[in-house]
Amino acid sequence: MADQHAQSGEDIRLTGDIQPGTADTHGVLGSVGSLGIPAIRWDESAEGPVLVLLDQTRLPAEEAELVCTDPQGLVQAIRALAVRGAPLLGIAGAYGVALAAARGFDVAEAAQALAGARPTAVNLAYGVHRAQEAHQAVLAARGEEAAAGAALAAARALHREDAEGSARMAEHGLRLLDELLPGGQHRILTHCNTGALVSGGEGTAFAVALSAHREGRLRRLWVDETRPLLQGARLTAYEAARNGMPYTLLTDNAAGSLFAAGEVDAVLIGADRIAADGSVANKVGSYPLAVLARYHHVPFIVVAPVTTVDPETPDGASIEVEQRSGHEVTELTAPRALSAGVEAGGGIAVAPLGTQAYNPAFDVTPPDLVTAIVTEWGVVAPVTAEGLRELCDRSRQSTMS
Amino acid sequence: MADQHAQSGEDIRLTGDIQPGTADTHGVLGSVGSLGIPAIRWDESAEGPVLVLLDQTRLPAEEAELVCTDPQGLVQAIRALAVRGAPLLGIAGAYGVALAAARGFDVAEAAQALAGARPTAVNLAYGVHRAQEAHQAVLAARGEEAAAGAALAAARALHREDAEGSARMAEHGLRLLDELLPGGQHRILTHCNTGALVSGGEGTAFAVALSAHREGRLRRLWVDETRPLLQGARLTAYEAARNGMPYTLLTDNAAGSLFAAGEVDAVLIGADRIAADGSVANKVGSYPLAVLARYHHVPFIVVAPVTTVDPETPDGASIEVEQRSGHEVTELTAPRALSAGVEAGGGIAVAPLGTQAYNPAFDVTPPDLVTAIVTEWGVVAPVTAEGLRELCDRSRQSTMS
Repeated sequence: MADQHAQSGEDIRLTGDIQPGTADTHGVLGSVGSLGIPAIRWDESAEGPVLVLLDQTRLPAEEAELVCTDPQGLVQAIRALAVRGAPLLGIAGAYGVALAAARGFDVAEAAQALAGARPTAVNLAYGVHRAQEAHQAVLAARGEEAAAGAALAAARALHREDAEGSARMAEHGLRLLDELLPGGQHRILTHCNTGALVSGGEGTAFAVALSAHREGRLRRLWVDETRPLLQGARLTAYEAARNGMPYTLLTDNAAGSLFAAGEVDAVLIGADRIAADGSVANKVGSYPLAVLARYHHVPFIVVAPVTTVDPETPDGASIEVEQRSGHEVTELTAPRALSAGVEAGGGIAVAPLGTQAYNPAFDVTPPDLVTAIVTEWGVVAPVTAEGLRELCDRSRQSTMS
Repeated sequence: MADQHAQSGEDIRLTGDIQPGTADTHGVLGSVGSLGIPAIRWDESAEGPVLVLLDQTRLPAEEAELVCTDPQGLVQAIRALAVRGAPLLGIAGAYGVALAAARGFDVAEAAQALAGARPTAVNLAYGVHRAQEAHQAVLAARGEEAAAGAALAAARALHREDAEGSARMAEHGLRLLDELLPGGQHRILTHCNTGALVSGGEGTAFAVALSAHREGRLRRLWVDETRPLLQGARLTAYEAARNGMPYTLLTDNAAGSLFAAGEVDAVLIGADRIAADGSVANKVGSYPLAVLARYHHVPFIVVAPVTTVDPETPDGASIEVEQRSGHEVTELTAPRALSAGVEAGGGIAVAPLGTQAYNPAFDVTPPDLVTAIVTEWGVVAPVTAEGLRELCDRSRQSTMS
């Protein structure tokens, strides 16, 4: 059914083809986590299957959906950060392969483009690979339709596992907080966005804070705005507000004052890739928080699913850090214009023309600055290569058994 | 000549009364430091004396002048950050008193309003006090006109001294850099704006970097954008570009990656108040840089005139840190709209409505994290109460002799 769509380019409905969410579609879709619209969903439309994303570049101004009808559209959406966050990128990558298969695109080609859309989050490549393997395992014996079905089943399984894993991370994380800070009303500082917008469930670090909130033990969520793209201000504040959590927004550089004033009990962040030695690549600004946390004797806790651990990456220096366009720094762009304009510029200049910017999307925190890594399979603390390997082995055995 | 202006309110020409700089006025004004338009100048117009400011909220989009005809207009300009930076605030405060005296306003009332316009930079109160003292010393014996002349002379002296002090700070600072980093091509990280826009001369920390550049020894100036008001992106990048310096802009939270990569040889910042124990209040984000610098064994150097040292403030905890409106964090505001809109909101919301923000304008770095304080009277290193007191004594003796 799909060849007529391939290569036409007309099915790349990413830019300018936004279907705003309506009460109606909400009803049909139900909700994932604590959001009104799920961050990602597979939909069987009359014109064939599509992948529907909540366009995160437009939040919190608009809750708009973005419909991908082919893998290339999804690649664009990933690059523009319409869909983002390590666990969700994994899910999106898997669905992307399923979409390619269902619509008759070259699956190997699509898988390669999707896995390479952003270099740092290992979950993206993992999700792509998992769906691709499921597709290949079935293709020769049972044909294209069955193989497409297998890819979709793999994506759905990953999606479901991520939701379950999210709940377990929240449980492990809250228990760890209570051990580290007994009897506490926790004041948690977080960076970037790690909630339902990055997950099949309620997220990673944010899910721990939300869990503390539900148990009446969250005194304050300090939300770093997370320059340059303001995922903290736009997305984490949005999720915190929707969940009725006590939160306060701050510029990234104001975190130092909070530490100095003794206002931070723990830092909780997510991860985009964890190397075999326990080095953690996460949103730029995480490493300075780790240094501040160490200097002030505050626990620095990373929350991520086991799929974020990459045994193939031996250490922090081996992690490829994505460098993004300087326009993200030299220009201000309003949320609703981000997906259309950020790579080509088009915002309001805040620096002189011709200004060169250093704009790494991530930084790397060495294991000795990480108090603990919380996964759905348990907590690694202290963070060592051995501890991580054991955890990964345990997760694999359980999955296989 | 002035009573008819007082209290009328019509002379507050701050908002919406912008005179764009023209080639003509440039010619008349000459230039201060390395800017085309001086950051501040006293002008004797046909309608009476005025204080003309380069409106820093509109840079780099526009080089617009802002004319203050009464002290209240200047208070507004100070609060809106149209004129800012510790040394320049001192000069502006002194001229403000002179303006009040020349135009027949109540000088004591004006002095109080000006000194209290922003609480953290001690230089503002110092400049106001100095001009007010000069005014009072002459008033009883020689009358209002002579007293106004004395206030203006005091302001002009402070302006001139600041320009001279700036050159001497640059000299001391560059010598210190060469001692700490012998033979080096320096890679200097700076925060906020400390150049000709904050000074009667070429500034404080920026002047040191500029001096290194002129001697062919500046390899790179790393410019922190300085959220929320982007003084680094808007002002420091502007000054660096005008001076042909090799500079790169970065988000404040990307500095950690530079330190980790060994790309920073020294941090140079200014100061808004230095307590008697050597604690340094400076633009928010300075303290996290001090912690990063310590962690990476990089010198952290504060450059400020002796007037920034406040012997009346015993320690860091005694420094009043200005808390500014949360709108600066929850809304994006383009440079040209900043002066009009920032306190009342009016920007583009980037966080959900009702989001509370923590927005301190400054933070405080304890003396043990400061490698050296560079002043026009020499360098204090290590930073101790005794060292600072000796330096202040030396500066006073030289001034009196």
